Amino acid sequence: MSSNYRNFRNNVPWLILFLEAVFIVLFYFLFSGDGASTSSISYPAFQDVNHMVIFGFGFFLTFLKRYGFSSTGFNLLIIVLGVQCSMLIEGLLVFLHQREDEDDLRRITKAVVSMTAVVISTGAVLGKTNPVQLILMTVVEIIVFHMSRWINNTFLQVPDNISMMHVHLFGAYFGLAVSSRFSEPSPRSEKNASTPKSNLLSMLGTLFLWVFWPSFNSVLAVNKSKAIYNTYFALAVSAVTAFVLSVLTTKDGKFRMTHIHSAVLAGGVTVGYAAHSITYPWIAMILGLLASVISILGSYCLQRCLNPALKIHDSSGVHFTFGLPAVLGALAQVILLIIKNWTNLTRLGYLVMLHIGAFCLTISVALITGFITGLILNRKLFKTIPVSKYFEDQFYWEFPHLAVGF
Amino acid sequence: MSSNYRNFRNNVPWLILFLEAVFIVLFYFLFSGDGASTSSISYPAFQDVNHMVIFGFGFFLTFLKRYGFSSTGFNLLIIVLGVQCSMLIEGLLVFLHQREDEDDLRRITKAVVSMTAVVISTGAVLGKTNPVQLILMTVVEIIVFHMSRWINNTFLQVPDNISMMHVHLFGAYFGLAVSSRFSEPSPRSEKNASTPKSNLLSMLGTLFLWVFWPSFNSVLAVNKSKAIYNTYFALAVSAVTAFVLSVLTTKDGKFRMTHIHSAVLAGGVTVGYAAHSITYPWIAMILGLLASVISILGSYCLQRCLNPALKIHDSSGVHFTFGLPAVLGALAQVILLIIKNWTNLTRLGYLVMLHIGAFCLTISVALITGFITGLILNRKLFKTIPVSKYFEDQFYWEFPHLAVGF
Amino acid sequence: MSSNYRNFRNNVPWLILFLEAVFIVLFYFLFSGDGASTSSISYPAFQDVNHMVIFGFGFFLTFLKRYGFSSTGFNLLIIVLGVQCSMLIEGLLVFLHQREDEDDLRRITKAVVSMTAVVISTGAVLGKTNPVQLILMTVVEIIVFHMSRWINNTFLQVPDNISMMHVHLFGAYFGLAVSSRFSEPSPRSEKNASTPKSNLLSMLGTLFLWVFWPSFNSVLAVNKSKAIYNTYFALAVSAVTAFVLSVLTTKDGKFRMTHIHSAVLAGGVTVGYAAHSITYPWIAMILGLLASVISILGSYCLQRCLNPALKIHDSSGVHFTFGLPAVLGALAQVILLIIKNWTNLTRLGYLVMLHIGAFCLTISVALITGFITGLILNRKLFKTIPVSKYFEDQFYWEFPHLAVGF
Repeated sequence: MSSNYRNFRNNVPWLILFLEAVFIVLFYFLFSGDGASTSSISYPAFQDVNHMVIFGFGFFLTFLKRYGFSSTGFNLLIIVLGVQCSMLIEGLLVFLHQREDEDDLRRITKAVVSMTAVVISTGAVLGKTNPVQLILMTVVEIIVFHMSRWINNTFLQVPDNISMMHVHLFGAYFGLAVSSRFSEPSPRSEKNASTPKSNLLSMLGTLFLWVFWPSFNSVLAVNKSKAIYNTYFALAVSAVTAFVLSVLTTKDGKFRMTHIHSAVLAGGVTVGYAAHSITYPWIAMILGLLASVISILGSYCLQRCLNPALKIHDSSGVHFTFGLPAVLGALAQVILLIIKNWTNLTRLGYLVMLHIGAFCLTISVALITGFITGLILNRKLFKTIPVSKYFEDQFYWEFPHLAVGF
Repeated sequence: MSSNYRNFRNNVPWLILFLEAVFIVLFYFLFSGDGASTSSISYPAFQDVNHMVIFGFGFFLTFLKRYGFSSTGFNLLIIVLGVQCSMLIEGLLVFLHQREDEDDLRRITKAVVSMTAVVISTGAVLGKTNPVQLILMTVVEIIVFHMSRWINNTFLQVPDNISMMHVHLFGAYFGLAVSSRFSEPSPRSEKNASTPKSNLLSMLGTLFLWVFWPSFNSVLAVNKSKAIYNTYFALAVSAVTAFVLSVLTTKDGKFRMTHIHSAVLAGGVTVGYAAHSITYPWIAMILGLLASVISILGSYCLQRCLNPALKIHDSSGVHFTFGLPAVLGALAQVILLIIKNWTNLTRLGYLVMLHIGAFCLTISVALITGFITGLILNRKLFKTIPVSKYFEDQFYWEFPHLAVGF
Repeated sequence: MSSNYRNFRNNVPWLILFLEAVFIVLFYFLFSGDGASTSSISYPAFQDVNHMVIFGFGFFLTFLKRYGFSSTGFNLLIIVLGVQCSMLIEGLLVFLHQREDEDDLRRITKAVVSMTAVVISTGAVLGKTNPVQLILMTVVEIIVFHMSRWINNTFLQVPDNISMMHVHLFGAYFGLAVSSRFSEPSPRSEKNASTPKSNLLSMLGTLFLWVFWPSFNSVLAVNKSKAIYNTYFALAVSAVTAFVLSVLTTKDGKFRMTHIHSAVLAGGVTVGYAAHSITYPWIAMILGLLASVISILGSYCLQRCLNPALKIHDSSGVHFTFGLPAVLGALAQVILLIIKNWTNLTRLGYLVMLHIGAFCLTISVALITGFITGLILNRKLFKTIPVSKYFEDQFYWEFPHLAVGF
């Protein structure tokens, strides 16, 4: 078994290297023309999103006390692989459908935004997968996500920038479905816990995400300034509500750090779909308030009732941080649509059908393919980690300082 | 008493929620028109300031060893509440005076910049106030600050962007006046101390503030590039002087981290008023040098003489980090004015009067209202924290990991 | 000896203050004209580079367990001194050669980019120099670097933005040459080690550098969008390869954090020279892959063979992080040149000669002056630190909390 495992470890790098070589060859064939030179996306906006995904999510996931190296390191690894993969799929679609080509910066930005889905999914299985499983999951998920977006764009006429905002919904439910196929960690495991220091580092990541969320929601939007404005207010009210509800739901009336981590971001997720079209800030504020409520109440209910029943272990609470707020956002989008178009009932019915269709399609594709991916990932072939080694950096990383007597 | 306190804790969230509801309703009435669509402020500039206030100040204040959660968490809470409150006040002033409306991004930016005053004040009472006291202080201070600015703008004809730069002065002296009404912590308290780790995290925040200070000074300025250039040089010389003076004032000729934290920023505070109008970089450099000198010598004198005499306990040294350099900046502004206009003595006298008037007005409003706020906050109604619980995260935050055996 | 040392400590601050005074006086004479008002460099791009150098490098170097204060603090100190010094040298060159003046922001940006050379050099002697040695090294190195650039520009007709990209090459080899003159630390010293916490903070810095590297490579480039695009892909492939090779070269098939820290950045260094001129992304990707390979294999060979033989102790591995990838980049630039110009052999020979000449000149100037600087710095006059005090914050910084009973 041990030599078997070492054998596996020795083969894996070559597989990744082979994957990377395939990527380079495909880039050679697909991206050898000159892209458009002027971009519709400003470099600082792209940089905000890039920073947020690489750095913000990396540290957002460092809350486990012995999993900081893997959280930040593997996050970088899957993003750089996934961005290349995502660009290739988009390039292939452009090539196959003879669509007009986009400029370089827009391509990378779209790839980075799509990768958010994968990053969210990895949050659900954080500490329970080895790098090979993560990489496979990344490749499968990004392909399926683009497929789902393509169906949305082509058959349901969802605009490109709206279908992109399904990342949270797709990522959360794909991750949960994958997670349902992994063994649950022992409830008494002391490794599945956080320390004040790791929580503070996670707060660092959360604040980064909070600050850059308006950039994320506006980067692909048409009406950028509206999107920025509405996202800011939704996030602000979300943060206030998070503190309030945290006090109300804990036993001693204290704040719980995990509540703050998840609920301050909920508003940003919820207004993702409609940020560019909300006319007045108070609507965004109400959405932010509801998002925070649903996130904290959801965390309460899910952890008590649903997760034990379905045997899902959601490491970093992506269900209530990203899943439920995204569902609320989709609902809100439909309600805003109804309010806006209620004079023209025929058109309204058609639009509502399309939106609900896109929502149902995305969520069911995510759940089904996530479930299948989970099944595949748990085959012996991939050397699943024993439950006792969950949430453990030392399983993957050298700790030379331990020898020096730390 | 204990049940009394629990009762208090149970009522507070509803009060905050009510406050938030009031904000949403007021937003409904005040911001339902369409703002100007093109902004005089670029989104990256706003983002720098936002990042600096949320993240930079949050971590700047994490130097206490057991107060990291509260420093970063409560900083976020009061900023999001304060920004909404600040926008409402500005909106009300626009509505009442029928001034022309500003665009959305400029409104938020001004609100975030104003909030710096509150953030600085919280530094003076860091670890000694409970969240309710903080929120009340935020609301009162932001109202008073806008009142003071309005008087400055209307009666003393101080331009809007200059009156905004009074944030440091106002924030520091308001905070000190509030702080004078709180009991001093026991001098032997081991919680009122920092560890190397917490100091390093505070350095992280300081570097963020240092890097983004040119954005802060230039975001509302007319001559942005001048403001950036001068602020950069003032900060650079400040940093050099901080290291030099730290060696000269400590016993063994070593560097003291708290000196570095406060003095590297002093230059940025000092040139705040005049950054856009200084013609040559060497003037900014000399101001940076003086700012650092006044900050470190001030910290030496204040902690030895003034603070014990006045019974003020200034948790994070806002008096010498922001207060004294801001006083120097106001002085420097008057001197630069005299040099520039000495040919026209009538006009000069008038201008100098206006500037000194604005300075005196701001500082006295800050001190008086701060003192009154401090008195109010210390009423039994607000359940002031016992001195033994100062600087303690566990008083407000759940530490579930403690139970797991950390 | 002890009183001697105290005497030294008391004199040093005055020397630095004198240096700063000289800088201010020179600024008075050199920068009292009005610079061009519109800049070719956008403020966000400058801010990215500034942020990266101050914050990213500061935390990149915090991997030593007891050297976090010095890593971040001294990094800030030498950058602010070096930027002023660098601007003065450029100003002097403009004055002497009556070249056309550049705008303010471009001047600072160039100074910050040049300072990268010094920051890299300090990495090689990290923990082994006292602040005076660091400051002297900074001043000498920045002067020599500008001299080397000036020769490159004037006699070898290397464009300004290309000669600036020699920073990595120059910095790494200058630092190594200086380092060769310092005593090696005891191999059993437990202070020359990292802890999981310090490694995580260093990862924080590394991610910052990774995210902002495209800004660094593009800020002075003519074809900015090309430079951004190519750098991003080189970095992405570099990161993938770093993970793969780390597994292949460690004993148990685990990841080593120091490999990740250095190799993920190698791609960015390598494409530095050619980023603006590479036509297709796959070329940048291959360069990124090779850079990562050379960095990790280099780290393996250097630490086993070359460094012990030459008695060089390279604290943060600048040789394989910046040195070797820069050599590869220079080589790649020549090969790309040959491919592009192979039809015109006369011109090709001339161009190749120029590039190789610039490379050889830079590296030999760096090695020779670095060696001499190392000799000078090790004179008794500068109170070299005893080997037993290497890598020790307490030698320079007050730790008051130790007294409080931490």
